Amino acid sequence: MQKIELLDGERIDQLFSTDVQIIQNREVFSYSIDSVLLSRFPKMPAQKGLIVDLCSGNGAVGLFASTRTKASIIQVELQERLADMNRRSIALNGLEEQLSVINDDLANLPQYDLRSKVDLMLCNPPYFKVDKDSNLNESEHYLLARHEIATNLDSICQVAQQVLKSNGRLAMVHRPDRFLDILDRLKTYKLAPKRIQFVYPKASKEANMLLIEAIKDGSMDGLHILPPLVVHEENGNYTPAIREIYYGK
Amino acid sequence: MQKIELLDGERIDQLFSTDVQIIQNREVFSYSIDSVLLSRFPKMPAQKGLIVDLCSGNGAVGLFASTRTKASIIQVELQERLADMNRRSIALNGLEEQLSVINDDLANLPQYDLRSKVDLMLCNPPYFKVDKDSNLNESEHYLLARHEIATNLDSICQVAQQVLKSNGRLAMVHRPDRFLDILDRLKTYKLAPKRIQFVYPKASKEANMLLIEAIKDGSMDGLHILPPLVVHEENGNYTPAIREIYYGK
Repeated sequence: MQKIELLDGERIDQLFSTDVQIIQNREVFSYSIDSVLLSRFPKMPAQKGLIVDLCSGNGAVGLFASTRTKASIIQVELQERLADMNRRSIALNGLEEQLSVINDDLANLPQYDLRSKVDLMLCNPPYFKVDKDSNLNESEHYLLARHEIATNLDSICQVAQQVLKSNGRLAMVHRPDRFLDILDRLKTYKLAPKRIQFVYPKASKEANMLLIEAIKDGSMDGLHILPPLVVHEENGNYTPAIREIYYGK
Repeated sequence: MQKIELLDGERIDQLFSTDVQIIQNREVFSYSIDSVLLSRFPKMPAQKGLIVDLCSGNGAVGLFASTRTKASIIQVELQERLADMNRRSIALNGLEEQLSVINDDLANLPQYDLRSKVDLMLCNPPYFKVDKDSNLNESEHYLLARHEIATNLDSICQVAQQVLKSNGRLAMVHRPDRFLDILDRLKTYKLAPKRIQFVYPKASKEANMLLIEAIKDGSMDGLHILPPLVVHEENGNYTPAIREIYYGK
């Protein structure tokens, strides 16, 4: 393993169902279950192709996805501090040939010679709309990662339409209270939803997360609502499905 | 109990969790689980108010709903044969004061002095679009009940916008592969989805049914995805949730 410098407050976490190690820092950014689920949700191009991981943060989604595909993965993160963690995690895992990081606004992505070249776009975006009721007392890093300050659903869907190949796919994790917005923006940019999975904290609770896959220029017919994904048993333990995702069989 | 005439092929079925008895005829129309679930899905006006049950068939949805409310229920069915079964089932249960049947095209409903007067509209509509690939070899009664021949999503949402009070609610059962159409038509007629529940035949299977409630002139914010409703255990038995719905506690 390469010697990778850790900055103050950073630690290395491992998702035990994979060999991937990720540099985390609670004060700056830590991945959570949504990144893990997103990385496992879409069908991956198995051998070759180009995947983009938008709003990559410290790189969790792309790094986990790398265990499922040999395709190249470009990660895109606006925040320099997070992009740096992402790059060091790539080095930590010796994945420099497969993964790379663009430290820029995702709206600039088409300028990187990527127009109509991407097979799959992954995105774990900021979840919250910003309005007068928003509580914006978080650290700047979390603020930008969680709230639609530097980007929003419209920009994400627009850049998906620009860089995806025809029939390329956008896979996103988001919150159910934004579901109608998501469908609206997808439609505006001719991205047809094909697979949706709702994630429930317990079988008796409302969904608090959703995974959605849409195809560029696809028909609006043939939507599938995948089996429910339940995170916890009623007693608070992880369900078998989540245990397998976190710890392997 | 009143003496009600049964026609050839008719039998009386009872939903054991209620006292309601329903005249059925397999050759013409039988209610199934979707009617039962729809009748239990929306919040009911408890004491007074006006409920409309569109596409009422042999009356199952409105008859089951009558156990949850004292509000008046108008059932609307185009097919004379089914409307007649519906009327006889109302008499069979002695519910003539609460329920009545309009035997007409639902598009004519505003003409019955109902414009902006309805608190809740229930609808178990025909599920299938008609196109060149449709297999239309069923009996006429099932054909009209299952396929969008005599009505369609657009007509249903339009009549909901016409007869519902402001903030009145439309509750519908439908199929996930029509979900995008449903949301599109609701939006066209300013019906804001607020509660959606997906129904899965087993926990490991894709959803094959959905329940949706929308509010007339409501805001597009605040959508809730209710806990998953799973019909069968993996071994084929009903789940406890469904056993309770069918047989009571």
